[in-house]
Amino acid sequence: MRKIGIIGVGHVGATIAYTLVVQGLADQLVLIDESDKKVIGEQYDLLDTMAGLDTVTTIKVQDYAALNDADVLITAFGSNRDESQSNEQIVTQIAAKIESADFTGVLINISDPCDLFTALLQAKTELPVKHVIGTGTLVDTVMMRRAIGLKLDLAPQNIGGYVYGSHGGSTFTAWSTVTVNGRPINEIQGSYGLNFESLMTASNYGGWLALAGKGFTNYAITTCVIKLVRAILSNAHLAVPVSTYSPEFETYIGRPAVVGANGVESLIMASLSELEQGQLKAAASVSKQKIDGLHRN
Amino acid sequence: MRKIGIIGVGHVGATIAYTLVVQGLADQLVLIDESDKKVIGEQYDLLDTMAGLDTVTTIKVQDYAALNDADVLITAFGSNRDESQSNEQIVTQIAAKIESADFTGVLINISDPCDLFTALLQAKTELPVKHVIGTGTLVDTVMMRRAIGLKLDLAPQNIGGYVYGSHGGSTFTAWSTVTVNGRPINEIQGSYGLNFESLMTASNYGGWLALAGKGFTNYAITTCVIKLVRAILSNAHLAVPVSTYSPEFETYIGRPAVVGANGVESLIMASLSELEQGQLKAAASVSKQKIDGLHRN
Amino acid sequence: MRKIGIIGVGHVGATIAYTLVVQGLADQLVLIDESDKKVIGEQYDLLDTMAGLDTVTTIKVQDYAALNDADVLITAFGSNRDESQSNEQIVTQIAAKIESADFTGVLINISDPCDLFTALLQAKTELPVKHVIGTGTLVDTVMMRRAIGLKLDLAPQNIGGYVYGSHGGSTFTAWSTVTVNGRPINEIQGSYGLNFESLMTASNYGGWLALAGKGFTNYAITTCVIKLVRAILSNAHLAVPVSTYSPEFETYIGRPAVVGANGVESLIMASLSELEQGQLKAAASVSKQKIDGLHRN
Amino acid sequence: MRKIGIIGVGHVGATIAYTLVVQGLADQLVLIDESDKKVIGEQYDLLDTMAGLDTVTTIKVQDYAALNDADVLITAFGSNRDESQSNEQIVTQIAAKIESADFTGVLINISDPCDLFTALLQAKTELPVKHVIGTGTLVDTVMMRRAIGLKLDLAPQNIGGYVYGSHGGSTFTAWSTVTVNGRPINEIQGSYGLNFESLMTASNYGGWLALAGKGFTNYAITTCVIKLVRAILSNAHLAVPVSTYSPEFETYIGRPAVVGANGVESLIMASLSELEQGQLKAAASVSKQKIDGLHRN
Repeated sequence: MRKIGIIGVGHVGATIAYTLVVQGLADQLVLIDESDKKVIGEQYDLLDTMAGLDTVTTIKVQDYAALNDADVLITAFGSNRDESQSNEQIVTQIAAKIESADFTGVLINISDPCDLFTALLQAKTELPVKHVIGTGTLVDTVMMRRAIGLKLDLAPQNIGGYVYGSHGGSTFTAWSTVTVNGRPINEIQGSYGLNFESLMTASNYGGWLALAGKGFTNYAITTCVIKLVRAILSNAHLAVPVSTYSPEFETYIGRPAVVGANGVESLIMASLSELEQGQLKAAASVSKQKIDGLHRN
Repeated sequence: MRKIGIIGVGHVGATIAYTLVVQGLADQLVLIDESDKKVIGEQYDLLDTMAGLDTVTTIKVQDYAALNDADVLITAFGSNRDESQSNEQIVTQIAAKIESADFTGVLINISDPCDLFTALLQAKTELPVKHVIGTGTLVDTVMMRRAIGLKLDLAPQNIGGYVYGSHGGSTFTAWSTVTVNGRPINEIQGSYGLNFESLMTASNYGGWLALAGKGFTNYAITTCVIKLVRAILSNAHLAVPVSTYSPEFETYIGRPAVVGANGVESLIMASLSELEQGQLKAAASVSKQKIDGLHRN
Repeated sequence: MRKIGIIGVGHVGATIAYTLVVQGLADQLVLIDESDKKVIGEQYDLLDTMAGLDTVTTIKVQDYAALNDADVLITAFGSNRDESQSNEQIVTQIAAKIESADFTGVLINISDPCDLFTALLQAKTELPVKHVIGTGTLVDTVMMRRAIGLKLDLAPQNIGGYVYGSHGGSTFTAWSTVTVNGRPINEIQGSYGLNFESLMTASNYGGWLALAGKGFTNYAITTCVIKLVRAILSNAHLAVPVSTYSPEFETYIGRPAVVGANGVESLIMASLSELEQGQLKAAASVSKQKIDGLHRN
Repeated sequence: MRKIGIIGVGHVGATIAYTLVVQGLADQLVLIDESDKKVIGEQYDLLDTMAGLDTVTTIKVQDYAALNDADVLITAFGSNRDESQSNEQIVTQIAAKIESADFTGVLINISDPCDLFTALLQAKTELPVKHVIGTGTLVDTVMMRRAIGLKLDLAPQNIGGYVYGSHGGSTFTAWSTVTVNGRPINEIQGSYGLNFESLMTASNYGGWLALAGKGFTNYAITTCVIKLVRAILSNAHLAVPVSTYSPEFETYIGRPAVVGANGVESLIMASLSELEQGQLKAAASVSKQKIDGLHRN
């Protein structure tokens, strides 16, 4: 029985819930939001959805205790609107409730700043480090693949490689990991006239077009989260970039890792170029400073 | 090759596009919206989505000519924000563009007032009457099933029957068509202590909770539309309530019909009770008056 | 996490495993068969399948202990080829192994004679009665719906109602439960010129065409099983005909029941006609005699 | 509307039909087989399947004329049982019927010897070369990925690269194209202690286990075919290994190509190592000889 919790049913959390329901991927959902009205609204829209499907998903709302035996918990709270509280305070309060529920599964944090909140959730829930991951640079990675695929008129599935770093902060494409139809992009760059800077501009510009046009983005990130959820449920040992704790940098940072039933099963030790190693170190350093700052509060 | 057009990518249109993409249901999508920025935003969020899937959907935007060989066209424009134009003027303009594209498939209108705009789209596009349908009381029907299922602690799939009438206007559950596990609800009403009025209140209240909590609803209606799209594509001859032209009332009204490759293949002539026949006649009469009013303009 | 066991990977068991894998429905599969070679063959064909999918399913073979925390266990052993043992002996041996594994989920038996083996599995595994169900007349029911749908040129989804009785033995369509687009078939029989006997002939003839043409049938029964699996996993409270223990007849017999997390949550007490009640009583009586005969051995 | 034809409904053809139906991937199927009885058997098992699904697929049998507007045609005829005819004669007869139907879509041949029959089908149907492809080394490629994934305890989705050559004849893994998490396997071979020969043995042994255990294989090849069908329908420009005509070798041979609406949109010009180039040349030479031999008949 697949049981998934979602805290925060804004644009992203609600789309995840919908996708799990419409594809029959979850057996039980637990939806939690700061607004009773909002979460009940989503519940009823989903109940009506099911009445037009041939699969059923049991939905509970506002029930932290029900997270007890959830396989996966997704945190997708938006930016704080109640100015009397800092986001950190809110995350801390939520973490306390997760801990009270004795949740023992894997937590996937989407909320930004992603590395920061993922680290904070890990610290406050006292879940094992590998059980708490963030979506980190996964969405940056699919954007990169989309941009290169469009440029080369190839399906994005044919583009491999990873974006590293701090989602929403300092990220970089590790070009030494990027492949096109299995060939290192470095080798074919010349013959296709590829300019890495232009590709990154295209990648980011597409993301900006989505954000500017919609006011938010929800579909790509949902697909990323569902990929992680599936990998955890089936213990897939799937290598994907996530925000995970990196012992060498003593901080959460976006990088490829092997995801399975226990969250992060191992880190992928790609042989980054010297330049890339420097970029990663720099991004991790900024991330660590921010996280250390948090913990001092 | 499945080609689907969507005009209007607000909450509903965008969710339909996303669902078609994420489930690999469409091969080509044509997305059109009054706002270039919005439609491009959706396009890029969906392109990034695909980079995390293993299926591809080709997406064109703002291209009426591409509707030429579309199988299905979905109209989901919201309420008019530009006060210099009436909604009727907008629908008329869009219909002219659909006609110019020589679209010959089936048009599914979601936009409210549903019967009215479906009728107007049929008149202005000059598509055959059976090729132009509205979602009508389909979403009211799934809501009714959800409410009865919840009351009886049964899966909504076990509840049969139809809501008739004018979606957003005068609708009614034709209780003589409602079944629970295949048994007429009239027969079991007593043993289960069912009160029809309470069930309708619960049905509508759930819809209101969704609308009030979210500010809009999009998931249930999307599932309804996808059910229609699939029935059209596969010529399923599926009986579902839709807004369709009813010769006996000389107007579009929500009622069960058999949906297939040509849109409405035939009307379901359920033997409604005398009371229900009166309700349907009354609803149709109001619908006809409004539509006739439109055509005079 | 969804964990499903399958004992017997012949045409039906293997197709179920394939369907669970290809649709990403299961997270863990445990496949068991009397032939190591056969089950390993299926395992490798499925592993190669996964290498072309974007979802993963963990597959264990020949591991009864792994059934311990399975949600659902499906028994699909074929007819006995080793003539030194009776089928009853084989079922008894398998039941002992299931019991040793401390399996506590829901057991779905497909193997024929269905009522008989389902009863035997329940008795020997000592699982609660409601946790042990058979596919019974579910496949007869979909056949009936197919036949009526074809006759009326309607999607089979529009046909409701149930076949009762002993699958492979004495079954009958309870016409008082059959609906077409929500209307009792009895009411429309005349206007459509429907002959119940001809419909049953068509239903059975189609089944015979499938069996005679293929030498076995596997697809429809797989779909039936997956419907049950999903209903159990999501606690759907879905009314479907299954082989279940009926206290009034003191035997397992095919009849509609509400299926949820605990297997059969309740029996559907349809108000059968007097004739149908007699038919059910007769079928149950034969089933009881056979089962009682077994237990005496 | 997605319309798919399948010629030959043995283990593979029938599994493809089932998968298309159960996942709602096709709107119309045309099933053709040398045995009326067999194809009607499959049709009825699938019709009964649909009666348990909520999607419909229209199925026609033994109707070559219905292939006229099919998007994709799959040939999956088994080995010849009627010894009065050679397989070549059978393929030639079928090709003539395909040509008579004025089929203009993309033909995917699965039947072995794959390169040979694909070439023959192209020659006899007179379809454009790029419109006629074979599954070639696609299934060998997924097997290779499965073997490396198992060895490294990684999801097969993380393994990239291609097997080239003549499926069923001389094939080879182009190790220069194989990647693990985006890194060339050549670079990590040492650190993981990978032995290429052992990996190939494991890959082939798994395939042999499947074949020996089942007597045939059908699931992995079905998934490969459906990947091709989807890529064609959505014009995905997906790079996959297929049997395609290679001008440089003047023959059909398995190699990566970009698959889209027109079948093979372009060939992937991977920079194979000198050894691999030699292997490909040798495999192509054998394939050419056989095909040339055929045409002389």
